Amino acid sequence: MPRTRKARTALNILFLSQIEPAERWIPGLQQALPADRFHTIENYDPAAIDVALVARPKAGIVGTLSGLKLVQSMFMGVDPLLADPTFPRQVPLARLIDTGMVNAMGETAIAHILDWHRHHYAYRRDKLARRWNRLGQHLPSDRNIGILGLGELGTSVAQRLLALGFRVSGWSRRPRELPGVQGFHGEDGLDAMLAQSDALICLLPLTAQTRGILNARSLARMKPGGCIVNLARGAHAVVPDVLAALDSGQLAHAYLDVFEVEPLPQDSPLWAHPGVTITPHAAAITEPRTAIRRIAANIELLRAGRPVPNLVDFGAGY
Amino acid sequence: MPRTRKARTALNILFLSQIEPAERWIPGLQQALPADRFHTIENYDPAAIDVALVARPKAGIVGTLSGLKLVQSMFMGVDPLLADPTFPRQVPLARLIDTGMVNAMGETAIAHILDWHRHHYAYRRDKLARRWNRLGQHLPSDRNIGILGLGELGTSVAQRLLALGFRVSGWSRRPRELPGVQGFHGEDGLDAMLAQSDALICLLPLTAQTRGILNARSLARMKPGGCIVNLARGAHAVVPDVLAALDSGQLAHAYLDVFEVEPLPQDSPLWAHPGVTITPHAAAITEPRTAIRRIAANIELLRAGRPVPNLVDFGAGY
Repeated sequence: MPRTRKARTALNILFLSQIEPAERWIPGLQQALPADRFHTIENYDPAAIDVALVARPKAGIVGTLSGLKLVQSMFMGVDPLLADPTFPRQVPLARLIDTGMVNAMGETAIAHILDWHRHHYAYRRDKLARRWNRLGQHLPSDRNIGILGLGELGTSVAQRLLALGFRVSGWSRRPRELPGVQGFHGEDGLDAMLAQSDALICLLPLTAQTRGILNARSLARMKPGGCIVNLARGAHAVVPDVLAALDSGQLAHAYLDVFEVEPLPQDSPLWAHPGVTITPHAAAITEPRTAIRRIAANIELLRAGRPVPNLVDFGAGY
Repeated sequence: MPRTRKARTALNILFLSQIEPAERWIPGLQQALPADRFHTIENYDPAAIDVALVARPKAGIVGTLSGLKLVQSMFMGVDPLLADPTFPRQVPLARLIDTGMVNAMGETAIAHILDWHRHHYAYRRDKLARRWNRLGQHLPSDRNIGILGLGELGTSVAQRLLALGFRVSGWSRRPRELPGVQGFHGEDGLDAMLAQSDALICLLPLTAQTRGILNARSLARMKPGGCIVNLARGAHAVVPDVLAALDSGQLAHAYLDVFEVEPLPQDSPLWAHPGVTITPHAAAITEPRTAIRRIAANIELLRAGRPVPNLVDFGAGY
């Protein structure tokens, strides 16, 4: 017995990216959304576009799409979009919550926390000096890991750390309750969490409130000999303050994936500092195999007139 | 209503170690076994000792204890004990299966596998050259991790890798079935597992059959660009073969915690090789806080005349 179905409205979808190649995405998207028409910057009618898929689009373009119903980011972070004053605030903007990317971020966070917890960063320095020096072992229950930001990424990282036996606390703008995680919020909450943290993982969105949050004052409040892991945005960390905390021994190591200018300039003092691990904004790379499923699901919700999840709150900035 | 209890037989327990300090262990042991008497090498009657607790004991001593009922190793590996021809073969010898140590080994294995999986070893080399070069991301389900040895350690590491989403296979002397793990055994099984392995973790006991198992022939059978993680014994790896596999690119990285001579001699070529991570036999350190519970439980089983678990099979050599 055939099910009654509404006729599917074909949508016009514009792929806009200065960094992601269209051929990496459009074949899979077309397969997932066979009725829809995909367009690229080379060939599109600004008035006909229903959905813009964006990953670092050229500034000014999204605002010219007069019939736009949804902007779907292909990244989790939207701060570069909001930095464009012409970016439309009246059209819903969906962040991409891609399970492949959430998993990748979890792998990276765990890799760095275990590198610090098992002293591997120190053994690498000992290797250069041909020094055999076994360091004391800590149980994970001896270690308190503080997570800045308890959104999808922070929550997933918290669960992985709990499974490894670490003590986990988390700080968020609004109060959040997560099983097994000691929750903090607000200015006072931040200081209280820092005071008990051996390690700090930054997974915050970049907003006026979070810019520069990893600074001399906050690093000094942490327990000595710990580490920071910044997987969010370069502007969350005040680099001279991080270097000073490493040089004083307050921090044992800094794992940095993101930088205010990327690629990191050749003359950055971070390159030569032995207490810094640098990865090239590679903590979690959007994975078309999983992301396309999420994007297609959002577009089907739009087509059905149902709410699309993970919309940006333009007031909060994420 | 008081429960009827048999009178507890007080046991004489001799602590024998050239490397573990008695004061790190005896206070906790005495607290866990308040009725028993602890002795050290300075002051004991060889005929009165019921239990020897050993961690690299001086050769020849255990064989002189004429009333011995149990030797309890404080380490998991017993190959150095069996290398002593005077070591008694007629007295039960229990390996220490300490949850703290099993956990620590799991942390270390995961730290190294994620270091390789997320390309952190490569990004460290790029840092020295001030090179910003993002490498392609793999899903964990793209990676096949082979575990050599499916005892307590291998089983625990397999479960952690499965939880992270990796494909996991395991090789053991006798056939073993573990949920989610593709099992292999015997010579042919080893070759079949190697052929599909991107990474190999060695957690085998050291026996005549496993000595030198990481050699030119076995490394050549792995998929190219992978890594090895040796957390078992130095003699499992043929160092010149490992270095040749790194130099040819067959192996991307080698994570080595154990060496035939420890501390690793100053003139070892491993120190200077950029493709080698060296840790000072620190993958898992016996943790008195958890080990004492296990040792005390074994001694209570002995006292009650019940079987003590994890006894060494002197024929198999572990």
